[in-house]
Amino acid sequence: MESKNFFVEQVRKIQNDLIAGLQSEDPSIRIKETNWERKDFLGHPGGGGRTVALEGEVIENAGVNTSLIFGGVNPEFAKKLGSETPEVWATGISTIIHPKNPRVPSFHANFRMIQSGEKIWFGGGADLTPFYPNEEDFRFFHQKWKNACDPYQVYESMKQSCDEYFVNSHRGTEMRGIGGIFFDYWNSGNMDHDMKMVTELSETLVPSYLPLVNKRKNEKYTEADEDFQLHRRGRYVEFNLIHDRGTTFGLQTGGNTDSILISLPARCKFTYQYQPEPGSPHEKMMEYYQPKDWTAL
Amino acid sequence: MESKNFFVEQVRKIQNDLIAGLQSEDPSIRIKETNWERKDFLGHPGGGGRTVALEGEVIENAGVNTSLIFGGVNPEFAKKLGSETPEVWATGISTIIHPKNPRVPSFHANFRMIQSGEKIWFGGGADLTPFYPNEEDFRFFHQKWKNACDPYQVYESMKQSCDEYFVNSHRGTEMRGIGGIFFDYWNSGNMDHDMKMVTELSETLVPSYLPLVNKRKNEKYTEADEDFQLHRRGRYVEFNLIHDRGTTFGLQTGGNTDSILISLPARCKFTYQYQPEPGSPHEKMMEYYQPKDWTAL
Repeated sequence: MESKNFFVEQVRKIQNDLIAGLQSEDPSIRIKETNWERKDFLGHPGGGGRTVALEGEVIENAGVNTSLIFGGVNPEFAKKLGSETPEVWATGISTIIHPKNPRVPSFHANFRMIQSGEKIWFGGGADLTPFYPNEEDFRFFHQKWKNACDPYQVYESMKQSCDEYFVNSHRGTEMRGIGGIFFDYWNSGNMDHDMKMVTELSETLVPSYLPLVNKRKNEKYTEADEDFQLHRRGRYVEFNLIHDRGTTFGLQTGGNTDSILISLPARCKFTYQYQPEPGSPHEKMMEYYQPKDWTAL
Repeated sequence: MESKNFFVEQVRKIQNDLIAGLQSEDPSIRIKETNWERKDFLGHPGGGGRTVALEGEVIENAGVNTSLIFGGVNPEFAKKLGSETPEVWATGISTIIHPKNPRVPSFHANFRMIQSGEKIWFGGGADLTPFYPNEEDFRFFHQKWKNACDPYQVYESMKQSCDEYFVNSHRGTEMRGIGGIFFDYWNSGNMDHDMKMVTELSETLVPSYLPLVNKRKNEKYTEADEDFQLHRRGRYVEFNLIHDRGTTFGLQTGGNTDSILISLPARCKFTYQYQPEPGSPHEKMMEYYQPKDWTAL
């Protein structure tokens, strides 16, 4: 199907756009690129991917990965996917960005297309993890995604899915960040329509986030700001290793561990019964890690 | 049963011994003690525990916890335990110690006794996570546990269980540390014998570890030593959140999150494709995170 190849090119384009954007925001950035190949379940060539790790003064660590895999899969896995055909085709982009300055939010996004037998679906989303209560940034981010979703009338539902997904449920209702959008097993029955929607959403990845890097990267910050950021990065680690489906599934099924765990922040902290200072901006920030109607605020 | 009360007292004694020992090694240590109570599945009093968090100059962070719980449990949980009676009685001590100096190993141990219906069993173990290739320390640690195990001829099997358990299987055969002993669902059919064995093992907790703190705590260390330690602590976090049964089970069943995650190190690092410097002691140390016949070296 031609549109599959189109989407492969689209995720590669977004990967390049994002890397170029990060280089532009952080000229100190160093790139470590790994091109990997995969054998399929039967030992045949099964595609591969491009893992790009970045480290710099502004962007402490980031990963911008794409992959295109195909071929045989474990028949039990195919059944889990709801397919009788033990074959899969999948492509996608996944990124996670941890800036050094605690006034710049961390960011995660991914978009993917999967086919197994007769079934085709899309998945993905984007979410923001800020560490300082700059409410205007949160509104900016959500508004960007609302604008991209509105032609398809999916913002409300995708925002809600995101609010439900990124919860550290072992810590009650506390979210990893302030959400964004999230969708999975997406198939409206109209492939062209879905492809157009997901392509447009993927085009929002860069402009929803890089302006926030640009705006905040030179802001002065305090030791207390950094301490709070490092503890919230600890919660990020908790979410990714305990709850995130992609991470736990990837590690259990023998995925490339380094590529999967590129999502973890370079540094983080854990403290027993951690609490931000009463009356601090960080205590205020804790209130934002709950679902809110951002674009109406 | 009288022996149950005996074991409750034993774990409380070891808790106090260990806290006193840590205070003696680190006079700067600050203690945060939390006594918590539990309601059972039916809302009745169900026991509780004493969580003791410690932070100091020598001991960067540590937890020394005991608990005694009883009463109704979720009937499905009881079935998982192999019991038809939806009641449980359990007591135990659990500790994890992360010293600041990378020349001092981190340490973990726990001992517990559990009864559900007619079934009674013991579980526990102790394992060491060093960051510097001081082989004599590793032999000291294993010899202590071998000496404690030898009267019961269980060292070989408990060491092997430990080597098999503390593996970061998403990173091949790499272990969290250098092992020690590990046992679970232990019931030889002779309750008095088992109680005597586990009591003696628990008496080895303090003398297997504190001498290493004393010996190494004032050793000078380099920035490279600390960088390696922080990355290995990252692997510690990976193990605990991805693989450790106690942690994942506790978080899934609504345990006290702060008490469970007291095991995480205060600071840690994650780097894409992390590798210690070629030819460094840290590269050498990587060879030790594999099963070895320590007491024969």
